[in-house]
Amino acid sequence: MKQLNIGIIGAGRIGSLHAKSITYNVPSAKVLGITDVKKTGLAELAAELGIEKIYADYKEMMADKEIDAVLVCSSTDTHADISIEAAKAGKHIFCEKPVDLTPEKVQAVIEAVKKAGVKLQVGFNRRFDHNFAKVKSMVTAGKIGDVHIVKITSRDPSPPPAEYSAVSGGMFLDMTIHDFDMARFLAGSEVTEVYASATCLVDPAIGEAGDVDTAIITLKFENGALGVIDNSRRAAYGYDQRIEVFGSNGAAVASNDTDTTVAFMGEDGVVSDKPLYFFLERYMQSFRDEMIQFVDAIHNDTSTPATGEDGLNSLLVALAAKKSVALGRPVLISEMKQ
Amino acid sequence: MKQLNIGIIGAGRIGSLHAKSITYNVPSAKVLGITDVKKTGLAELAAELGIEKIYADYKEMMADKEIDAVLVCSSTDTHADISIEAAKAGKHIFCEKPVDLTPEKVQAVIEAVKKAGVKLQVGFNRRFDHNFAKVKSMVTAGKIGDVHIVKITSRDPSPPPAEYSAVSGGMFLDMTIHDFDMARFLAGSEVTEVYASATCLVDPAIGEAGDVDTAIITLKFENGALGVIDNSRRAAYGYDQRIEVFGSNGAAVASNDTDTTVAFMGEDGVVSDKPLYFFLERYMQSFRDEMIQFVDAIHNDTSTPATGEDGLNSLLVALAAKKSVALGRPVLISEMKQ
Amino acid sequence: MKQLNIGIIGAGRIGSLHAKSITYNVPSAKVLGITDVKKTGLAELAAELGIEKIYADYKEMMADKEIDAVLVCSSTDTHADISIEAAKAGKHIFCEKPVDLTPEKVQAVIEAVKKAGVKLQVGFNRRFDHNFAKVKSMVTAGKIGDVHIVKITSRDPSPPPAEYSAVSGGMFLDMTIHDFDMARFLAGSEVTEVYASATCLVDPAIGEAGDVDTAIITLKFENGALGVIDNSRRAAYGYDQRIEVFGSNGAAVASNDTDTTVAFMGEDGVVSDKPLYFFLERYMQSFRDEMIQFVDAIHNDTSTPATGEDGLNSLLVALAAKKSVALGRPVLISEMKQ
Amino acid sequence: MKQLNIGIIGAGRIGSLHAKSITYNVPSAKVLGITDVKKTGLAELAAELGIEKIYADYKEMMADKEIDAVLVCSSTDTHADISIEAAKAGKHIFCEKPVDLTPEKVQAVIEAVKKAGVKLQVGFNRRFDHNFAKVKSMVTAGKIGDVHIVKITSRDPSPPPAEYSAVSGGMFLDMTIHDFDMARFLAGSEVTEVYASATCLVDPAIGEAGDVDTAIITLKFENGALGVIDNSRRAAYGYDQRIEVFGSNGAAVASNDTDTTVAFMGEDGVVSDKPLYFFLERYMQSFRDEMIQFVDAIHNDTSTPATGEDGLNSLLVALAAKKSVALGRPVLISEMKQ
Repeated sequence: MKQLNIGIIGAGRIGSLHAKSITYNVPSAKVLGITDVKKTGLAELAAELGIEKIYADYKEMMADKEIDAVLVCSSTDTHADISIEAAKAGKHIFCEKPVDLTPEKVQAVIEAVKKAGVKLQVGFNRRFDHNFAKVKSMVTAGKIGDVHIVKITSRDPSPPPAEYSAVSGGMFLDMTIHDFDMARFLAGSEVTEVYASATCLVDPAIGEAGDVDTAIITLKFENGALGVIDNSRRAAYGYDQRIEVFGSNGAAVASNDTDTTVAFMGEDGVVSDKPLYFFLERYMQSFRDEMIQFVDAIHNDTSTPATGEDGLNSLLVALAAKKSVALGRPVLISEMKQ
Repeated sequence: MKQLNIGIIGAGRIGSLHAKSITYNVPSAKVLGITDVKKTGLAELAAELGIEKIYADYKEMMADKEIDAVLVCSSTDTHADISIEAAKAGKHIFCEKPVDLTPEKVQAVIEAVKKAGVKLQVGFNRRFDHNFAKVKSMVTAGKIGDVHIVKITSRDPSPPPAEYSAVSGGMFLDMTIHDFDMARFLAGSEVTEVYASATCLVDPAIGEAGDVDTAIITLKFENGALGVIDNSRRAAYGYDQRIEVFGSNGAAVASNDTDTTVAFMGEDGVVSDKPLYFFLERYMQSFRDEMIQFVDAIHNDTSTPATGEDGLNSLLVALAAKKSVALGRPVLISEMKQ
Repeated sequence: MKQLNIGIIGAGRIGSLHAKSITYNVPSAKVLGITDVKKTGLAELAAELGIEKIYADYKEMMADKEIDAVLVCSSTDTHADISIEAAKAGKHIFCEKPVDLTPEKVQAVIEAVKKAGVKLQVGFNRRFDHNFAKVKSMVTAGKIGDVHIVKITSRDPSPPPAEYSAVSGGMFLDMTIHDFDMARFLAGSEVTEVYASATCLVDPAIGEAGDVDTAIITLKFENGALGVIDNSRRAAYGYDQRIEVFGSNGAAVASNDTDTTVAFMGEDGVVSDKPLYFFLERYMQSFRDEMIQFVDAIHNDTSTPATGEDGLNSLLVALAAKKSVALGRPVLISEMKQ
Repeated sequence: MKQLNIGIIGAGRIGSLHAKSITYNVPSAKVLGITDVKKTGLAELAAELGIEKIYADYKEMMADKEIDAVLVCSSTDTHADISIEAAKAGKHIFCEKPVDLTPEKVQAVIEAVKKAGVKLQVGFNRRFDHNFAKVKSMVTAGKIGDVHIVKITSRDPSPPPAEYSAVSGGMFLDMTIHDFDMARFLAGSEVTEVYASATCLVDPAIGEAGDVDTAIITLKFENGALGVIDNSRRAAYGYDQRIEVFGSNGAAVASNDTDTTVAFMGEDGVVSDKPLYFFLERYMQSFRDEMIQFVDAIHNDTSTPATGEDGLNSLLVALAAKKSVALGRPVLISEMKQ
């Protein structure tokens, strides 16, 4: 099998991480070239990982016939346009989430991809997390029976700067969108209605910037199941990522990962580890596995495990949640499509 | 200290249980008399526990000057009237929940009690559960910081007969009312708004009877905190009673109680106990402790730990949840008071 | 079924506890009479529990034809003689452990009991502990397969006064004897050889009194299994009582009991409860259940669940362990019988 | 800092694993060359990892001035001789355990290393395991207080072929030696006396080959602490690797690692993951970290974290355990040195 030649657009934290994952963990692919608007450190990264080509800009990469697939790891506002150009250039695409903050542009990417006949995978890495993937496999295998309730606890260790909300679209779009995708993934069904109860309890500056930092979101799914997500921008004990699927035969519950299994039994009680600190620690394995599956989908010409439609539908849920808070009522997903 | 003389009205499952609890665990009180509309087994129970008096009916008990306090353990539709009579007769009152299905009658009980200057405790036994009481003490001690989210998982092992809904007022009134009280108790604040998303996934007959069996309920509290409850009438693994309070300093999480701590490590995994089966097993200790505290409140002339207002306010939340499902929108508690 | 009439000799901590257990939890028996060398509080206890007779001394109880069975809860040095007298008087006997510190006197009790045709149960209450009983049932049901290793962790929260060793016979005889019985019980086989490595690390005064406070004891069983016990007189976190049986099909592991299931997740980690403090908290349920089974064995004329032979054989193991420390070599149980 | 040039002798399972670890995880070192008595697959491995040199034999590697350090991953019987040659050639040495099955040859390696002034690290990888390293750090930091008991559970998922015992020296030398090193490491003290109770319960062929498969080993340490190890060659549930250090302030307990945190709550109980299957899964992280620390020790000219003396002293304990079984009595380590 010929090694897949990959080009990476954007060599920031997540771009470098993917470059290393592919180099060290995906023998059937290699990072052929890389580009970034910032040139600092690019040559060093290329040298360390044996990346042959550094492109002046992403257009040069698009023009390179040797490149089979691109990873779009640039800033969010460029995701859709670059993805469309990549599709036109006949490159398979891995696009970090969100594809865009507007459904229209995500739709445009989906259409360009369809027209070009290339693969598109969206960076919903948590689908590949060892714990959640096991829960999903139990759902798929029928072990849980009919799904009745999907329940997600998702709390960050600390909030981003308040001004970040303006760029990111707010908590539902930059943070909860992962949970919306996870809920859809686990329920095996699309969301039809959203009710979000949200407030600002962590940092008043977030509220002043027009965003929320604490929320309970209720979902209804096409298959009749219910979903619930609770979010906070700040958990004193770190990154809280738990999931539960409850169904007619029982419930699968995924607890947090920890650094060690050590418990200390002392006068003050039995003390064990906090959850792994944040997404780089908690989800490192999933970042690697999403690359493996992306490359496999191309090699085997199968559907990618997180498609453009997943990106679009999760975005619609996030926008519906935002609208629900604004209007103080449940919002139908069908309202978001008009 | 003089032993408190208690009369028990209704010698069914819960009435007998309280009779035994008091006899064996509350030295500062004694069950002086008992009555029930059904006479079967009454004499045997009295003999076993050394109860001196069997009254022909509850009115005879009311007239007995020796009786200091009564436990109202009769059928729900009689709770309010009997409680009002008891208040008029100057007896302290422990009334099983719900006091009544209508706020008006609960209000009438509260007024009768106030006028008579007697104590009233409502049977929200879960407040006395060892796990939940510890979580509450952590909230009160400030260990959790400001409360942001109260989260309750409450699932029964199997549903009551579908026709029971008509009598009980439905799931929110016969089952979730305990969770509403618990949410209020843990938040240390009153509910202002309720949104309930509910459906029928366990047994179609329940739906045909006009009730629901699966629900996610979102609460807003006066102090700004959010609450979420998830309910099911049937968990394949038994009685699921978990609670979590998340705040600015961390989270207190109460897991299920089990019969043993034994885990079997074998080829198929590590297998440990299911939760204790149902409320009689899970909450036995709380039934005992609510009696101890009721008797203490009378002896020490302090406020009871679950008052008539607790009964009323939890009922209003339950009715609001029902209305929310009917209208498909969040409902303010203030709407219920008009 | 006629209620069994029980007489209790010794109304100290354990005697009163049994008196209450029987009164409240064993409907098929009643405490008819009680006696103690100390008269203080005896009348009050009798009044509280409705005990009809207070005997001047235990001989008076022996002479009472109404008494069917006696509980020997007096001081250890009187256990054997009183038990022998009780057997001669035709009373069934529940004797607190140890029956005696010498095998000869235990043997004499066994013979008196056999001759009289009465029942004898020795107070190895831990056999009735919910966790350990479940492990035993898994062994018996063959779930664990052939037993290879029995492993017991047994640590007290704090040591007795150093001078207690002289009376008690030392740690192996007053504390580890429970573990020896448990090991025999779980292995379903008799010990053939003991090696004890023991030292004084908790309190030098214990060493000066000629005793040890920390030990690892290795056992060999007739059926080929191995056993290991680790002991300490002082665990900073309380009473540590864990058990594991490992066999050809897997392992059953019993963890400590705790007061609640609450975990607090905070900046310093996840903190959960210490074990229940000491034997009265940890083993309360077992003290009750050993009474139920004692009474049942008499009513049904079956073997008691902890016999005189259990008392004798566990004592021989304890004495062998003591000898092993003294000689610095493994000791055969057969050496103890010569 | 100049990259350290490493040569690997033996490209079997563990040699290849180290080659990958260094290439992917140790930027301050590179695998310059490799050699193996079997030539199959060697070129492919070198190509995959970018290893420049393939030596005809290890002597050629010794002669290569560019090589700074060697990993001795060849068969056990060659470890000592190759290590001595490497020392003479001025190469730093990482030697897989055991260095040799005889104390004399291990001593010879230690002396050669000392004379040459090179570093020697022995492959006691478990010292670097995340769980055990944390327990060790708690001991070192004084959190546990004075160490009283070190307790190790170490059970393999399945036994090696019975004939392997002849080559390996038997269970104590091929399996328990890791536990002996761990006990020494955690106690922070040398073993002075060993008593081993061992038998053959897993596979009679092992017994016929003169080895044991099930054992309880008791240790005494210079600092007064006691140690206990229980071993089995076959745990039905996989690889059981637990550790506990109990001291005057409490106990640190390391449980097994699992693949996921998922628990399924169903009618048959709550089922969670078995331990990670075997040493490659369980200890992968430790194999990587021992390389990082080996390279660091050379770069910083500090002592290696597992020295030749560790290899020697752990071997002496293993030989003493073997002798203890043979003689049926405790054996002093001082007896092994005569």
